[in-house]
Amino acid sequence: MDHAARLHRLQSILPKNQLDFLLITHLPNVRYLSGFTGSAAALLVGGQGATLFTDGRYIAQARQEVSNAQISIGSKGPFLAAAEWLAAKPGRRTSKPASRTLGIEAESLTAGARDRLRSALRGKVKVRSAPPLVEQARMVKDLAEIRRIREAVQLGAGLLRVARMKIRPGVCEFEVAAAMEYEARRKGAEGMSFPTILASGPRSAIVHGRASEARIPRGGFVVCDFGVILAGYCSDRTRTLHVGHPSREACDFYDAVRQAQQAAIEAVRPGVTAGQVDEAARAVLRKHKLAKWFTHSTGHGLGLEIHEGPRLAAAQPQRLEPGMVVTIEPGAYVPGKWGVRIEDVVVVTASACEVLTPADKDLIVI
Amino acid sequence: MDHAARLHRLQSILPKNQLDFLLITHLPNVRYLSGFTGSAAALLVGGQGATLFTDGRYIAQARQEVSNAQISIGSKGPFLAAAEWLAAKPGRRTSKPASRTLGIEAESLTAGARDRLRSALRGKVKVRSAPPLVEQARMVKDLAEIRRIREAVQLGAGLLRVARMKIRPGVCEFEVAAAMEYEARRKGAEGMSFPTILASGPRSAIVHGRASEARIPRGGFVVCDFGVILAGYCSDRTRTLHVGHPSREACDFYDAVRQAQQAAIEAVRPGVTAGQVDEAARAVLRKHKLAKWFTHSTGHGLGLEIHEGPRLAAAQPQRLEPGMVVTIEPGAYVPGKWGVRIEDVVVVTASACEVLTPADKDLIVI
Repeated sequence: MDHAARLHRLQSILPKNQLDFLLITHLPNVRYLSGFTGSAAALLVGGQGATLFTDGRYIAQARQEVSNAQISIGSKGPFLAAAEWLAAKPGRRTSKPASRTLGIEAESLTAGARDRLRSALRGKVKVRSAPPLVEQARMVKDLAEIRRIREAVQLGAGLLRVARMKIRPGVCEFEVAAAMEYEARRKGAEGMSFPTILASGPRSAIVHGRASEARIPRGGFVVCDFGVILAGYCSDRTRTLHVGHPSREACDFYDAVRQAQQAAIEAVRPGVTAGQVDEAARAVLRKHKLAKWFTHSTGHGLGLEIHEGPRLAAAQPQRLEPGMVVTIEPGAYVPGKWGVRIEDVVVVTASACEVLTPADKDLIVI
Repeated sequence: MDHAARLHRLQSILPKNQLDFLLITHLPNVRYLSGFTGSAAALLVGGQGATLFTDGRYIAQARQEVSNAQISIGSKGPFLAAAEWLAAKPGRRTSKPASRTLGIEAESLTAGARDRLRSALRGKVKVRSAPPLVEQARMVKDLAEIRRIREAVQLGAGLLRVARMKIRPGVCEFEVAAAMEYEARRKGAEGMSFPTILASGPRSAIVHGRASEARIPRGGFVVCDFGVILAGYCSDRTRTLHVGHPSREACDFYDAVRQAQQAAIEAVRPGVTAGQVDEAARAVLRKHKLAKWFTHSTGHGLGLEIHEGPRLAAAQPQRLEPGMVVTIEPGAYVPGKWGVRIEDVVVVTASACEVLTPADKDLIVI
């Protein structure tokens, strides 16, 4: 991972954002810029350099992981340590002390933390909410990141095999999820990227139907939505299986979602907006008179976090660029009856997209 | 769970905290007061009643789980919906609109969220950071909570059996953790209460040594620190095992930590301070000349969250009360060599404490 290049790019855009410093407190952003993976850190980025603030638990780890920032070990919270360091640092000789501006990540710092930060700065530095500069950079993945995501997606995809073996009438949903999660851990995943969704029978209509103590019924759909974290990067995949012989209506319902998903995949290319990809899926479901049952958005970026930009939702103006990695996951859910979702991870290429998830999408019948 | 009584107690202390309303945004607090377990919610508590704000995904669930608050379903963020509802509500006839005060949980709302909240209130309501009123109430568990924690602790304790069977020289740490987590899920746990710590050989000296790809060596300590979430409540347990015949020095080291842990347990009773319990453990390790290797605090409360008040750390003035549930987990860690930690969960009783974790603490030799 070329942390140095990422940090330099960020430093180069601080002036045009009228910032002298940017305090990175969102841990995935700290990791993205410095490589540090500990659970307590703040990265203070200035025009000339950067300093990572962490605590005594992470001395060895910080030295091992971080090569493009100074390391400062303290006993109080990392962002407070950063503020005190900044308050103690003399300002430019030609300017008044309070003329320096510190940008903060207002969505990762609590309201209470910002109050304490302001107190610690003792009026010597102005504080302003910065735009999501790192999140914007992170939307476009570099080659090393795409390789990591590909590996996570490959590991994650293999869990479907476990689901196929475990899904049987009478088995508890959480037993299936447990077996999948065990396989993930055995294969080296650090954990799941979100609580495994395993929703059978009428529960398949619950969009976020976490694996429960419910027993899988003799017939009906089973939505399996699962992902792993491998070397920091997330995977995400959904397949919907069917227990027992599916009715004509069930097959048609499944095919409509599958066509919608295929249409959205085919819509992905550089220059189209996130909203256009969403609309491609929605239009197919509209044709099948199922659009009103498609109650969420078509997809989202993923990488160090399971939900990142861009959001593939109605009317989203963000244009896709090569290197963006997104999920394509339309679904349809009839409350009390059934639900179907099909999801793949794709990376935007120079002219279209590459599907990273194995492509078999025929309805699996158990 | 008597959510109504909890909510009433909170309402009764709003006036003396100079608050007309309190906006609960920390989800464990929302759950504690209303029973709602969804992932998006804000609970607006006033002197006369409470309203739960959530979104369309949770209509059915909110109606099923919540009986002591109005339910408001909206499409924007729950705390913004609460702010708009409040801004639209007429003030008391005798007072100016801006004379009402809303308390917020400044440690659970981001700085950006507080800015948006203030905008949405359009100056009609004053905003102030409230003291941690719900956290203070949650420190003392009621009988229903203690029953839940006891069940979680019992389930969690059983995972040690899996660890004993799996820990063998040459096995990867994460394989052991995976087997423990599989067992937890099979027994109905919603998940682990924190990433399982499984640190073998010299890694046992790393306080937060998450299970890694490292292989368990032929000899040395293995620290196993693990917990489950069952019906919303957390367990937490640590046992240190030894692979191969332990040296005299290893046995003495283990016994010193064990004595420290026993001394801390015996110090727990109503009226003592959290600091006194911490000191009881520390004094024993001092006697054994190991105090400098005890680099963390003696314990913490647990319940709906894995870390709650009170903190059992040096000089903490919080006095223990019957119904508080805390971990007692001293340890000693010699970097590069080895580490030992022993942890139980105890509940403060009328005169002393009850240890919820099974009590066997002889060094397990594999």
